[in-house]
Amino acid sequence: MKNIYIIGVGLIGGSFALNIKKLNPDAVIYGIDNKAEHLQEALSLNIIDKKAEIEDVENADLIVLAIPVDTSVIELPKILDNISDDTLVIDVGSTKLDICKAVANHPKRRNFLATHPISGTEFSGPKAAFLELFQNKTNIICEVEQTAFKLQQKAIELFVNIGMRIRYMNPEAHDKHIAYVSHLSHISSFMLGKTVINKEKNERDIFDMAGSGFESTVRLAKSSPEMWTPIFKQNKDNIIETLEDYINNLNQFKNLMENDDFDAVFKEMKDTNHIKQILKGIQ
Amino acid sequence: MKNIYIIGVGLIGGSFALNIKKLNPDAVIYGIDNKAEHLQEALSLNIIDKKAEIEDVENADLIVLAIPVDTSVIELPKILDNISDDTLVIDVGSTKLDICKAVANHPKRRNFLATHPISGTEFSGPKAAFLELFQNKTNIICEVEQTAFKLQQKAIELFVNIGMRIRYMNPEAHDKHIAYVSHLSHISSFMLGKTVINKEKNERDIFDMAGSGFESTVRLAKSSPEMWTPIFKQNKDNIIETLEDYINNLNQFKNLMENDDFDAVFKEMKDTNHIKQILKGIQ
Repeated sequence: MKNIYIIGVGLIGGSFALNIKKLNPDAVIYGIDNKAEHLQEALSLNIIDKKAEIEDVENADLIVLAIPVDTSVIELPKILDNISDDTLVIDVGSTKLDICKAVANHPKRRNFLATHPISGTEFSGPKAAFLELFQNKTNIICEVEQTAFKLQQKAIELFVNIGMRIRYMNPEAHDKHIAYVSHLSHISSFMLGKTVINKEKNERDIFDMAGSGFESTVRLAKSSPEMWTPIFKQNKDNIIETLEDYINNLNQFKNLMENDDFDAVFKEMKDTNHIKQILKGIQ
Repeated sequence: MKNIYIIGVGLIGGSFALNIKKLNPDAVIYGIDNKAEHLQEALSLNIIDKKAEIEDVENADLIVLAIPVDTSVIELPKILDNISDDTLVIDVGSTKLDICKAVANHPKRRNFLATHPISGTEFSGPKAAFLELFQNKTNIICEVEQTAFKLQQKAIELFVNIGMRIRYMNPEAHDKHIAYVSHLSHISSFMLGKTVINKEKNERDIFDMAGSGFESTVRLAKSSPEMWTPIFKQNKDNIIETLEDYINNLNQFKNLMENDDFDAVFKEMKDTNHIKQILKGIQ
């Protein structure tokens, strides 16, 4: 892999760039980003070797598409129009159904692999990128059978070399499950932050009273609205379903408290403590 | 301070024991706990020097009451009945109004200082205790004027020596604010855990797909129901109010999504990003 194009030089794109360069010191990493200051920053931080434009990708061996999911859906078909027969294009978006649909009938569909590295942080931009981001994380690959076998192999070798484990899923199942384990966490965190900020107009009180528990629960409320709004839009139906479940559970908990049924409150928490065993698997 | 009694040798009590011993190597740390295995564990871990019973406290210089808040309210008056005039008794509970009320007219009220070190973790029991727990954390002191001045001084010297900053509040304000910045976080986390567990019957899916975002958002769902149920009971009215606010905000967010008003969704998140600045103060 010689000519690598990173489209979107943020947390994920930038971290891919760092890893690919480490694995292939001779590769030339081209950066493309619609934010000129991000591109300059990526260059200064040696995340990319050169700036490029989206029209330059015809000589690419690998293209990593790491931009907001609404733009990915528009750009991917155009990118596929411009590549050679041997180019591998991967996306890394947090929704998979719309992007798979967008290129389902594209003549170069077999050059594309739909992936979702479960490795975000609440930070964004080139400065957030780091080499270890993908270590021991899961990469979910969708519709693997739609990608040319040689290009699948190339992609999986890369993912394994940067420390990821692979899991295969269809896009529908991916979007449904990820609504629960990722998208809902973000909304719950944002709304918790909002609730507390609205109430605690005197920030001194939050500052002084909030412990690390609050900090970890609202951490995701630092996340980028530019990135998350298109995700929520694309995965609207699944997310609304998870939100309904979540709100119902909160209402039920509130009702138990209102009815002074603290035995049931205890049981709710005891049953959910089971999350300990599940989380052991994540870290 | 020679004779120290730690009632409840868990995370907070045990961490106080470790700190007091370090500051006063000649002190004798007596442990009291209704769980015999915890007491034995605290002894084995050198968190306490000796086991004791609640009736033994008459020679105490300092008593740290670190048990669930419902039991504290019952035990504190009895403890005050048995102490000498110079004994300082502090509690560390996450609710302050009920305990202050419980001893408001006790003849030994001036021997008691109501405190809340904002320093919990999701772990509990003697094994969870560690020396650095209180470093750079806030300790909220309620009704300081009800405590004898000399005993106030003694307590504050201890808190400052173990790395805490002090903040004074009345119990009503404490319980109201802490409902937002601590108790609500716990419920939001427990219900998020419940929602995901209920949906994802196949745990393999959670294990594989959940990233560190989910992990941090549900971390508090590992917390002890034995400790938290009495807190929710004592702070019921404040917590129900916070839950109503939170549920309303979630419903509003859901409505925005249902109406495809993603400009407003974006704005909700952008406004809440402000939490970044607030959180900088916490860490």
